[in-house]
Amino acid sequence: MSDFPKFVEFHEEGPREGFQAEKEIFPLQERVAFIEALSETGLKQIQVGSYVNPKMVPQMADTDDLFNAITKNDQVRYTALWLNQRGFDSALANSHVDVDGKIFLYTSDAFCRKNNGCSAQELNQKQLKWLDAYKENNIALESVYILTAFGCNIQGEVPIESLNGALSFVKAICESRELKTPKIILTDTMGWGNPLEVKRRIDAVRVLLPGARIGMHLHDTRGMGPANVYSSLEMGIDLFESSVAGLGGCPFGSQKNMQAAGNVCTEDMALMCEELGIDTGLNLDALIEAARMVERIIGRPLMGKAMHSGTIASLRK
Amino acid sequence: MSDFPKFVEFHEEGPREGFQAEKEIFPLQERVAFIEALSETGLKQIQVGSYVNPKMVPQMADTDDLFNAITKNDQVRYTALWLNQRGFDSALANSHVDVDGKIFLYTSDAFCRKNNGCSAQELNQKQLKWLDAYKENNIALESVYILTAFGCNIQGEVPIESLNGALSFVKAICESRELKTPKIILTDTMGWGNPLEVKRRIDAVRVLLPGARIGMHLHDTRGMGPANVYSSLEMGIDLFESSVAGLGGCPFGSQKNMQAAGNVCTEDMALMCEELGIDTGLNLDALIEAARMVERIIGRPLMGKAMHSGTIASLRK
Repeated sequence: MSDFPKFVEFHEEGPREGFQAEKEIFPLQERVAFIEALSETGLKQIQVGSYVNPKMVPQMADTDDLFNAITKNDQVRYTALWLNQRGFDSALANSHVDVDGKIFLYTSDAFCRKNNGCSAQELNQKQLKWLDAYKENNIALESVYILTAFGCNIQGEVPIESLNGALSFVKAICESRELKTPKIILTDTMGWGNPLEVKRRIDAVRVLLPGARIGMHLHDTRGMGPANVYSSLEMGIDLFESSVAGLGGCPFGSQKNMQAAGNVCTEDMALMCEELGIDTGLNLDALIEAARMVERIIGRPLMGKAMHSGTIASLRK
Repeated sequence: MSDFPKFVEFHEEGPREGFQAEKEIFPLQERVAFIEALSETGLKQIQVGSYVNPKMVPQMADTDDLFNAITKNDQVRYTALWLNQRGFDSALANSHVDVDGKIFLYTSDAFCRKNNGCSAQELNQKQLKWLDAYKENNIALESVYILTAFGCNIQGEVPIESLNGALSFVKAICESRELKTPKIILTDTMGWGNPLEVKRRIDAVRVLLPGARIGMHLHDTRGMGPANVYSSLEMGIDLFESSVAGLGGCPFGSQKNMQAAGNVCTEDMALMCEELGIDTGLNLDALIEAARMVERIIGRPLMGKAMHSGTIASLRK
């Protein structure tokens, strides 16, 4: 318990990961209002959208317009996702985008082949060109995302050796390019993580990359998300990527028309932190209002719990 | 981690706590089919219904018929709830009911006054008549439920002294009546518990009633349920009361028409146990089928996660 961090930072993924997972495309103005509401909650980083192929991901086709339309809070970083040079160039070209240097490493060959048509190791090598591109544009490598870091629906188990392989690759590129150790984001893309495995894999990062700040990008696919957050807190983790209202349910459901749960829920996990005596800098009531707003936009009950039951703080006498 | 129990027992609350929370009354035959499906999942105890005032709780008015209609599995105990002599007599009179001796203690005066029109301490004294009734019928006092053991929406904070008061009362009645120490069920009626408070209050039971087996009846009202289960496991707790599909959302929502989350979800928490290497004796696939069945009966998406995403075991190669 004594390893709890004093302060935990939440990075909001809902506008990108949430709306990307929806079949419907919602009006730009509603998404603008949602992002502006999130901007007033104390969140310091919000992922707004993706510069990706509009034919593949039509929900993100107007990301550039979205960036242009939001009234920004200068205390907030507004980030974007890109997966190819064209997307990166578009993000760079829009002064409203806070471009953060990041790369994505795979631990699952099967998932990598499905998404990228090459092995995880081949993809790692391709990531080097991002380091070149970032250097060219004076952008520091800030984050390394390790995808399916706990397991993969397509491949099955992801042995810890695969994680270690990805971490060794990070270590090698940092040494050879004299880069500051980036943040390592352990991404439980498909909800395989359990609280013990969370501890084991955080330990693995600390052994191989002792200086790295670790962030957890956790999905609540099978209901272990909040336990995994708690287990991470016990390990002293102070950075989580999450979604207001638990947005982001992927179409990985095992049966047709079933909506699997999304990211761990920002306001619920922030509430847990506050109840544990850990500061978040967040206004829970404002987060809950944003969650209710996005529930109205999407038009079906969302997964968040506190948004439907209220905070505890409001009930203390 | 080393304090994990080897085996965890889940007692199913869904048929009673779940259907009691619904406004609609569902056909008897559908509830029979649900209970019969639950009976084949490895669960050893299922709470079927309540012998309570049918005018107050019309959803439970046909509890006696329900007990008579189910085809029982002789490996399963089928229990009921009662709150007055008439209810207890009805339960006793039906040979299909497995009558377990239990009493309910309040830690929140305000909640007790609302439900019973007297203070928590006055209600404790009234519980003594149940001990007489059980003795008269050769029924052992098996479980003591401590309600709102973590906090109360009506009263606010429930200080640990209130829990200790209830525990001291249990200790006193066990001594004066020479009773075997009953199970203590810490009941987080309104979802106030957090993982640290879970540990503190389990410790409190162990200090005051060292021999007592402790069970946790946790609600996921604010999204901390799974973290509270994990925290309990870290304390070696081996008994949980839970609901398939997360049934049991109480009308404690902070806004009209909002359905607050219910009990912690049996199959999700059993999946977490299995992933942690803790045996449950449960068939996860059969539990998930029962969860999907009750979702079809109730006719709206329920809170369970694994029921919408599938198990991990099924994806391992």
